Amino acid sequence: MLIGTVQFAPRYGQPEANRAHVAALVAGVSADVLVLPELFTSGYFFQATADARAAAEPVPKGPSCAWLIEQARATGTTFVAGLPERGPEGGLFNSAVIVPPDGPVTCYRKIHLYNEEKLHFAPGRQPPPVVDLTARDGTSYRLGLMICFDWFYPEVARSLALRGADIIAHPSNLVRKNCPRAMPIRALENRVFTVTANRYGSESNGKATLTFIGQSQACAPDGELLYRAPRVGDAADVVEIDPAEARLKRVTAHNELWEDRAPATYSS
Amino acid sequence: MLIGTVQFAPRYGQPEANRAHVAALVAGVSADVLVLPELFTSGYFFQATADARAAAEPVPKGPSCAWLIEQARATGTTFVAGLPERGPEGGLFNSAVIVPPDGPVTCYRKIHLYNEEKLHFAPGRQPPPVVDLTARDGTSYRLGLMICFDWFYPEVARSLALRGADIIAHPSNLVRKNCPRAMPIRALENRVFTVTANRYGSESNGKATLTFIGQSQACAPDGELLYRAPRVGDAADVVEIDPAEARLKRVTAHNELWEDRAPATYSS
Repeated sequence: MLIGTVQFAPRYGQPEANRAHVAALVAGVSADVLVLPELFTSGYFFQATADARAAAEPVPKGPSCAWLIEQARATGTTFVAGLPERGPEGGLFNSAVIVPPDGPVTCYRKIHLYNEEKLHFAPGRQPPPVVDLTARDGTSYRLGLMICFDWFYPEVARSLALRGADIIAHPSNLVRKNCPRAMPIRALENRVFTVTANRYGSESNGKATLTFIGQSQACAPDGELLYRAPRVGDAADVVEIDPAEARLKRVTAHNELWEDRAPATYSS
Repeated sequence: MLIGTVQFAPRYGQPEANRAHVAALVAGVSADVLVLPELFTSGYFFQATADARAAAEPVPKGPSCAWLIEQARATGTTFVAGLPERGPEGGLFNSAVIVPPDGPVTCYRKIHLYNEEKLHFAPGRQPPPVVDLTARDGTSYRLGLMICFDWFYPEVARSLALRGADIIAHPSNLVRKNCPRAMPIRALENRVFTVTANRYGSESNGKATLTFIGQSQACAPDGELLYRAPRVGDAADVVEIDPAEARLKRVTAHNELWEDRAPATYSS
């Protein structure tokens, strides 16, 4: 099966332009799973909570979800994408969705909000999701989802892997340098595939400027990079994988990843 | 305070020669903590359990512990070292000890045995230890301990950090390439110092040969390397650190490492 990332530089507060940009980037790209960046509709560095609220949409009834559903149905691709969510009670969440061509939308609200995101969003309180899906060639796979700074907490990728994820989709808006070197370790220590979609470009909130580091990448269960996009520039990268590799938890002839865990000795 | 590693190539089944080699390497080295490799007295790749048994010693009454206590008292250095332990009931453990100049010996039995180690050793069942110590300049610090393949399980370093370790000592006999790139992530995700002492050289058990990868290293709480020894060659490296840096768990202006954990959402 084919998994990949769409890297671009979202325009602040221009969801229609961003959706159109993504549509152009993915046209003709064949993939079973395509991961878009965190907050791909809205941009990232909100100048005020009002801007986050203006960009936020209900899930799955909002226009960006509707657009993702349409894209998924038209192409047979499962889209994973981050966007600001407006909850039924009006709460704002930094969320991401899994949108398969023929199934329900799954929404995850980011648990580990980064820095000033806390000024605008409430943290998610539910575990990150793992969804059973089928690729176009009939391959069954289980897709987990976490968002950006969730990478910093090894518990998140671990939780997804323990609950059966073969692939961890990871929409991101990374500004610090460490995540690209940490994700191979997350893949290795859980023996899963990881797919990190990052944005590039800069945004200012009027006080500070953030520069996003691109380098969208996929990693294999042995901790090897499958590809890495450049720091700057649009990129729709796709790689062929066999998700069954992520179910082989054998580390050596005498080590099985899960059997060797010793939770009674771990602090939580 | 000063922390460091002693990298060398232990001779198989020659504890006296190995102790003498270490004594020569550390002579004149000023450090508060020196970490030696895993199984530094015995070598690693046992040709038979009888060889492991022959090399194993009671802790702290055996000759290598006695030697470490003597070294610690003579130099004011806390030694951390791996050695095969013979338990009171005759069980064999891949253990490591913390030997301060003026306090009790702390013993840890490796929880995550690697590959054929399982043929010779029983796994430890107790959590890895964290010990309160004082450097020669009066600096208080908390020293945690894990052994080699324990690095693969993020739960181990996490447990040590959650229980207050400022520094994780990590005696190792690494043969695979991934640990040197993983330990900066263990340091970063826990905001602790890590000190990995590895051996170099090769050993055969008659059927296979293992080549150890050297590269003993220390990492800082920001994930940066403080030093890395070469792949081959004796090395006694020391670096000055402030353990108080490991107590600053602030990640950004709005993120505190422990406060932002969300255990209710984690699977264990």
